Amino acid sequence: MKRYKLTIAYDGTAYCGWQRQPDPVPTVQREVEKAAGAIVSHPVSVLGSSRTDTGVHARGQVGAMNVETHLDTERLRKAINSRLPNDILIRQMEEVDLGFDVRTAKRKRYQYCIWSDQDRPVFQRQWAYHYYRRLDIEAMQAACKLFEGEHDFEAFRGQADERENTVRTIFSCSIHRRAELVIFGVEGSGFLYHMVRTMVGTVLEVGNGRRKPECVCEIIASKDRRQAGPCAPAVGLCLQWIRF
Amino acid sequence: MKRYKLTIAYDGTAYCGWQRQPDPVPTVQREVEKAAGAIVSHPVSVLGSSRTDTGVHARGQVGAMNVETHLDTERLRKAINSRLPNDILIRQMEEVDLGFDVRTAKRKRYQYCIWSDQDRPVFQRQWAYHYYRRLDIEAMQAACKLFEGEHDFEAFRGQADERENTVRTIFSCSIHRRAELVIFGVEGSGFLYHMVRTMVGTVLEVGNGRRKPECVCEIIASKDRRQAGPCAPAVGLCLQWIRF
Repeated sequence: MKRYKLTIAYDGTAYCGWQRQPDPVPTVQREVEKAAGAIVSHPVSVLGSSRTDTGVHARGQVGAMNVETHLDTERLRKAINSRLPNDILIRQMEEVDLGFDVRTAKRKRYQYCIWSDQDRPVFQRQWAYHYYRRLDIEAMQAACKLFEGEHDFEAFRGQADERENTVRTIFSCSIHRRAELVIFGVEGSGFLYHMVRTMVGTVLEVGNGRRKPECVCEIIASKDRRQAGPCAPAVGLCLQWIRF
Repeated sequence: MKRYKLTIAYDGTAYCGWQRQPDPVPTVQREVEKAAGAIVSHPVSVLGSSRTDTGVHARGQVGAMNVETHLDTERLRKAINSRLPNDILIRQMEEVDLGFDVRTAKRKRYQYCIWSDQDRPVFQRQWAYHYYRRLDIEAMQAACKLFEGEHDFEAFRGQADERENTVRTIFSCSIHRRAELVIFGVEGSGFLYHMVRTMVGTVLEVGNGRRKPECVCEIIASKDRRQAGPCAPAVGLCLQWIRF
């Protein structure tokens, strides 16, 4: 028995998120488990570090699986990739300690892409949220900075989340424009359900002038979900990497 | 009656090229004509400057159409865009002389994206051709330079082309690498059927060491299609712009 850590990229457009669901719901976990199982000829369970939602993308989701195989690691990785659909790829694979636990992530980075233009995106339409109103990037950047530090993010969690501890540390949060794309990036110790998308939804309301950057501190202090902005659409979100 | 010049972007993945074909074959021209016709309430014919093939993309295809409308140009553009599928967009629109002829292009630029990595692309899979063998970019660049100038490109045209004059001027041709992407760009007075893709197929054989850069001169001189490399797949090709 060997344990492997997998670094997985996927275009989430066609999937109902990472997490396995009853047949025939297409999920990324199911595709990876099916491909790996076909190669090692036994059922495989792949636990993921982040449960990305329907339509959310990843460049660096991390999963772990136990398998019985005589293949060397790189050959196994390529064999599984050859069985995966073309919107999912195992980018890296390494043998790890049997005790390796994907839930022990220390730091994660998410990116959210906003297509800020009057016209909708053609080539970025699957990974950017089209926002046609003018955005004040400086104000948005000021708001982002106020997320940094250790805070109770109760006001930014989706209702479906039942985890009790809502305190998280944000190591960095910033936003910049590159032509039509406005890119929001955030690194933290962990994220609550819908937390990144609710941060983005709030920062967008700062960008369009409906709120002031300082609202971020007030919303955090309120611990009231109704004070924060809406949850931004899944299409723009991408899990960039996870560190252990 | 007004005549408009349209600058059109499209992801060609879902279309059997630009050129209208009998129903129900999906083509870009048909979609644009259908959307424009629905807005102005009369049949519209949109002539394109380049007949892009099945699966080929464009950031700057140029079309022209005559319409009867009281809408101002920007309102008309937005109205048509609202009727177009999300993989086609009219980026610019301007009223032109009734004599404007899209076939009088002076200069066109095409780009061809190669995903040069052992692993297939996930996010670029719809607009880059996956080439997993090692590529010698310097040798490819040397080959590209030999296309520049006025030459008879008979050896680089697909058999379907029956135009008599096969002399074209290449103003610039070059290639560079940006991480996994190898980007080939060419500007010319015009291009024969399959000419860019056959240039790319030939340059790839220089990149993998099967041919020397100097082969380009020999192939051009031969005027024999069998001397050139294969026609590279449509997926990597994008019509960047057209100047008049």
